[in-house]
Amino acid sequence: MTAPLPEFLEACESLGLLRLIVTSDAAVLEVRCPLTKLFYAELPKGKYANMHQDDFEFHLNMDQIKQVKFETGEAKRGNFTTYAIRFLTAADQPALSAFLQWGKPGEYAPGQVEAWEALKAKFGEQWQPE
Amino acid sequence: MTAPLPEFLEACESLGLLRLIVTSDAAVLEVRCPLTKLFYAELPKGKYANMHQDDFEFHLNMDQIKQVKFETGEAKRGNFTTYAIRFLTAADQPALSAFLQWGKPGEYAPGQVEAWEALKAKFGEQWQPE
Repeated sequence: MTAPLPEFLEACESLGLLRLIVTSDAAVLEVRCPLTKLFYAELPKGKYANMHQDDFEFHLNMDQIKQVKFETGEAKRGNFTTYAIRFLTAADQPALSAFLQWGKPGEYAPGQVEAWEALKAKFGEQWQPE
Repeated sequence: MTAPLPEFLEACESLGLLRLIVTSDAAVLEVRCPLTKLFYAELPKGKYANMHQDDFEFHLNMDQIKQVKFETGEAKRGNFTTYAIRFLTAADQPALSAFLQWGKPGEYAPGQVEAWEALKAKFGEQWQPE
Protein backbone atom coordinates (compact mmCIF):
# COMPACT_ATOMS: atom_id res chain seq x y z
CA MET A 1 0.00 0.00 0.00
CA THR A 2 0.93 3.62 0.01
CA ALA A 3 0.17 6.34 2.53
CA PRO A 4 1.25 9.88 3.32
CA LEU A 5 4.44 9.87 5.37
CA PRO A 6 3.02 12.22 8.07
CA GLU A 7 0.23 9.72 8.72
CA PHE A 8 2.81 6.99 9.25
CA LEU A 9 5.12 9.12 11.40
CA GLU A 10 2.22 10.02 13.65
CA ALA A 11 1.20 6.37 13.91
CA CYS A 12 4.75 5.65 15.14
CA GLU A 13 3.87 7.27 18.46
CA SER A 14 2.15 3.95 19.27
CA LEU A 15 5.60 2.30 19.30
CA GLY A 16 6.56 4.02 22.53
CA LEU A 17 10.24 4.56 23.27
CA LEU A 18 12.40 4.49 20.15
CA ARG A 19 16.06 4.81 19.36
CA LEU A 20 16.33 7.24 16.45
CA ILE A 21 19.58 6.95 14.53
CA VAL A 22 21.04 9.32 11.97
CA THR A 23 24.36 8.47 10.32
CA SER A 24 26.57 10.67 8.18
CA ASP A 25 29.69 9.54 6.31
CA ALA A 26 31.62 9.35 9.56
CA ALA A 27 29.40 10.14 12.54
CA VAL A 28 26.36 8.69 14.26
CA LEU A 29 23.87 10.28 16.64
CA GLU A 30 21.33 8.13 18.44
CA VAL A 31 18.61 9.51 20.69
CA ARG A 32 16.13 7.66 22.86
CA CYS A 33 12.69 9.20 22.55
CA PRO A 34 9.18 8.45 21.36
CA LEU A 35 8.24 9.98 18.02
CA THR A 36 5.75 12.52 19.24
CA LYS A 37 4.54 16.11 18.87
CA LEU A 38 5.75 16.39 15.30
CA PHE A 39 5.31 19.61 13.42
CA TYR A 40 5.81 20.37 9.77
CA ALA A 41 7.53 23.01 7.70
CA GLU A 42 7.82 23.71 3.98
CA LEU A 43 11.42 24.68 3.29
CA PRO A 44 13.20 25.31 -0.02
CA LYS A 45 14.82 21.87 0.30
CA GLY A 46 11.56 20.02 0.89
CA LYS A 47 8.73 19.34 3.31
CA TYR A 48 10.11 18.62 6.76
CA ALA A 49 8.80 16.77 9.77
CA ASN A 50 10.34 18.17 12.95
CA MET A 51 10.49 17.37 16.61
CA HIS A 52 11.94 19.59 19.34
CA GLN A 53 12.76 18.25 22.77
CA ASP A 54 14.67 19.92 25.62
CA ASP A 55 17.98 18.43 24.65
CA PHE A 56 17.67 17.54 21.02
CA GLU A 57 16.07 18.30 17.70
CA PHE A 58 15.04 16.03 14.88
CA HIS A 59 14.35 17.00 11.27
CA LEU A 60 13.33 14.78 8.37
CA ASN A 61 13.12 15.90 4.75
CA MET A 62 10.07 13.83 3.86
CA ASP A 63 10.39 14.55 0.12
CA GLN A 64 13.62 12.52 0.11
CA ILE A 65 12.09 9.38 1.64
CA LYS A 66 11.24 6.95 -1.12
CA GLN A 67 10.73 3.77 0.85
CA VAL A 68 9.88 2.64 4.38
CA LYS A 69 11.00 -0.82 5.45
CA PHE A 70 10.26 -2.91 8.53
CA GLU A 71 13.23 -5.02 9.56
CA THR A 72 14.00 -7.46 12.33
CA GLY A 73 17.54 -8.37 13.31
CA GLU A 74 19.76 -9.96 15.91
CA ALA A 75 21.08 -7.74 18.69
CA LYS A 76 24.85 -7.36 18.51
CA ARG A 77 25.11 -8.02 22.22
CA GLY A 78 22.67 -10.52 23.63
CA ASN A 79 20.41 -13.10 22.17
CA PHE A 80 17.27 -11.19 21.27
CA THR A 81 15.49 -9.66 18.31
CA THR A 82 15.66 -6.04 17.25
CA TYR A 83 12.75 -4.29 15.55
CA ALA A 84 13.59 -1.46 13.20
CA ILE A 85 11.97 0.84 10.70
CA ARG A 86 14.26 2.16 7.97
CA PHE A 87 13.50 5.36 6.08
CA LEU A 88 15.32 5.04 2.77
CA THR A 89 16.26 7.59 0.11
CA ALA A 90 16.21 7.03 -3.65
CA ALA A 91 19.79 5.75 -3.32
CA ASP A 92 18.44 3.08 -0.94
CA GLN A 93 20.38 4.61 1.92
CA PRO A 94 18.79 4.63 5.38
CA ALA A 95 18.51 8.36 6.06
CA LEU A 96 16.88 7.54 9.39
CA SER A 97 16.44 4.36 11.42
CA ALA A 98 14.02 3.92 14.30
CA PHE A 99 14.54 0.91 16.59
CA LEU A 100 12.20 -0.18 19.33
CA GLN A 101 14.09 0.73 22.49
CA TRP A 102 14.17 -1.76 25.32
CA GLY A 103 14.62 -1.07 29.04
CA LYS A 104 16.97 -3.90 29.93
CA PRO A 105 18.49 -5.57 26.82
CA GLY A 106 15.78 -7.52 25.06
CA GLU A 107 13.01 -6.46 27.45
CA TYR A 108 10.55 -4.42 25.47
CA ALA A 109 7.69 -2.60 27.14
CA PRO A 110 4.32 -4.41 27.09
CA GLY A 111 2.59 -3.95 23.75
CA GLN A 112 5.61 -2.45 22.01
CA VAL A 113 6.42 -5.36 19.69
CA GLU A 114 2.69 -5.85 19.02
CA ALA A 115 2.41 -2.19 18.00
CA TRP A 116 5.35 -2.64 15.61
CA GLU A 117 3.72 -5.75 14.11
CA ALA A 118 0.41 -3.89 13.78
CA LEU A 119 2.03 -1.01 11.90
CA LYS A 120 3.82 -3.47 9.64
CA ALA A 121 0.53 -5.26 8.91
CA LYS A 122 -1.25 -1.99 8.21
CA PHE A 123 1.32 -0.22 6.02
CA GLY A 124 3.26 -3.19 4.62
CA GLU A 125 6.74 -4.59 5.26
CA GLN A 126 8.08 -2.32 2.50
CA TRP A 127 6.09 0.55 1.11
CA GLN A 128 6.46 3.85 -0.74
CA PRO A 129 5.18 7.06 0.79
CA GLU A 130 2.78 9.03 -1.38
CA MET B 1 49.59 22.55 12.58
CA THR B 2 48.54 18.97 12.98
CA ALA B 3 47.49 17.10 16.09
CA PRO B 4 45.85 13.81 17.01
CA LEU B 5 42.08 14.10 16.79
CA PRO B 6 41.51 12.66 20.31
CA GLU B 7 43.65 15.45 21.75
CA PHE B 8 41.45 18.00 19.98
CA LEU B 9 38.16 16.32 20.90
CA GLU B 10 39.17 16.28 24.55
CA ALA B 11 40.17 19.94 24.37
CA CYS B 12 36.64 20.66 23.13
CA GLU B 13 35.35 20.03 26.64
CA SER B 14 36.55 23.59 27.39
CA LEU B 15 33.85 24.88 25.02
CA GLY B 16 31.07 23.99 27.45
CA LEU B 17 27.61 23.35 26.08
CA LEU B 18 27.61 22.44 22.39
CA ARG B 19 25.03 21.63 19.77
CA LEU B 20 26.27 18.50 17.99
CA ILE B 21 24.73 18.01 14.56
CA VAL B 22 24.80 14.95 12.34
CA THR B 23 23.09 15.06 8.95
CA SER B 24 22.31 12.19 6.59
CA ASP B 25 20.91 12.54 3.06
CA ALA B 26 17.50 13.41 4.45
CA ALA B 27 17.56 13.60 8.25
CA VAL B 28 19.19 15.70 10.94
CA LEU B 29 19.74 15.00 14.63
CA GLU B 30 21.00 17.74 16.92
CA VAL B 31 21.82 17.23 20.59
CA ARG B 32 22.76 19.80 23.22
CA CYS B 33 25.61 18.50 25.32
CA PRO B 34 29.22 19.22 26.20
CA LEU B 35 31.78 16.96 24.52
CA THR B 36 32.92 15.02 27.55
CA LYS B 37 33.82 11.58 28.89
CA LEU B 38 34.83 10.28 25.49
CA PHE B 39 36.00 6.73 25.13
CA TYR B 40 37.59 5.02 22.17
CA ALA B 41 37.14 1.78 20.28
CA GLU B 42 38.96 0.13 17.39
CA LEU B 43 36.33 -1.30 15.05
CA PRO B 44 36.69 -2.90 11.62
CA LYS B 45 35.46 0.36 10.04
CA GLY B 46 37.95 2.56 11.88
CA LYS B 47 38.97 4.09 15.18
CA TYR B 48 35.93 5.56 16.90
CA ALA B 49 35.45 8.23 19.54
CA ASN B 50 32.26 7.57 21.51
CA MET B 51 30.11 9.28 24.09
CA HIS B 52 27.20 7.73 25.97
CA GLN B 53 24.67 9.86 27.82
CA ASP B 54 21.36 8.85 29.39
CA ASP B 55 19.31 9.73 26.35
CA PHE B 56 21.72 9.67 23.46
CA GLU B 57 24.86 8.22 21.99
CA PHE B 58 27.48 9.74 19.79
CA HIS B 59 30.02 7.94 17.61
CA LEU B 60 32.69 9.40 15.35
CA ASN B 61 34.83 7.40 12.93
CA MET B 62 38.00 9.41 13.42
CA ASP B 63 39.81 7.71 10.51
CA GLN B 64 37.35 9.40 8.15
CA ILE B 65 37.99 12.94 9.39
CA LYS B 66 40.47 14.62 7.09
CA GLN B 67 40.04 18.24 8.09
CA VAL B 68 38.81 20.31 11.02
CA LYS B 69 37.59 23.82 10.33
CA PHE B 70 36.60 26.70 12.61
CA GLU B 71 33.77 28.75 11.18
CA THR B 72 31.76 31.77 12.27
CA GLY B 73 28.37 32.58 10.79
CA GLU B 74 25.21 34.61 11.11
CA ALA B 75 22.37 33.09 13.11
CA LYS B 76 19.34 32.37 10.93
CA ARG B 77 17.10 33.96 13.52
CA GLY B 78 18.47 36.92 15.36
CA ASN B 79 21.37 39.21 14.84
CA PHE B 80 24.29 37.39 16.40
CA THR B 81 27.32 35.32 15.52
CA THR B 82 27.47 31.53 15.53
CA TYR B 83 30.68 29.64 16.32
CA ALA B 84 31.08 26.24 14.75
CA ILE B 85 33.66 23.52 14.31
CA ARG B 86 33.21 21.35 11.21
CA PHE B 87 34.64 17.85 11.02
CA LEU B 88 35.08 17.13 7.31
CA THR B 89 35.60 13.92 5.37
CA ALA B 90 37.83 13.48 2.31
CA ALA B 91 34.81 14.49 0.19
CA ASP B 92 34.80 17.81 2.12
CA GLN B 93 31.45 16.91 3.65
CA PRO B 94 30.79 17.92 7.26
CA ALA B 95 30.31 14.54 8.95
CA LEU B 96 29.81 16.34 12.23
CA SER B 97 29.29 19.95 13.24
CA ALA B 98 29.68 21.33 16.75
CA PHE B 99 28.20 24.77 17.45
CA LEU B 100 28.63 26.74 20.65
CA GLN B 101 25.21 26.52 22.28
CA TRP B 102 23.74 29.63 23.80
CA GLY B 103 21.21 29.90 26.61
CA LYS B 104 19.01 32.67 25.24
CA PRO B 105 19.66 33.34 21.53
CA GLY B 106 23.05 34.99 21.19
CA GLU B 107 23.86 34.81 24.90
CA TYR B 108 26.84 32.53 25.26
CA ALA B 109 28.09 31.44 28.66
CA PRO B 110 31.00 33.47 30.08
CA GLY B 111 34.29 32.28 28.57
CA GLN B 112 32.67 30.15 25.90
CA VAL B 113 33.58 32.27 22.87
CA GLU B 114 37.05 32.89 24.34
CA ALA B 115 37.56 29.12 24.66
CA TRP B 116 36.55 28.68 21.00
CA GLU B 117 38.99 31.41 19.95
CA ALA B 118 41.74 29.84 22.07
CA LEU B 119 41.26 26.43 20.42
CA LYS B 120 41.27 28.08 17.00
CA ALA B 121 44.53 29.88 17.84
CA LYS B 122 46.12 26.70 19.16
CA PHE B 123 45.12 24.22 16.44
CA GLY B 124 44.57 26.55 13.47
CA GLU B 125 41.48 27.77 11.63
CA GLN B 126 41.76 24.75 9.31
CA TRP B 127 43.94 21.77 10.11
CA GLN B 128 44.42 18.11 9.32
CA PRO B 129 44.30 15.52 12.07
CA GLU B 130 47.35 13.28 12.26
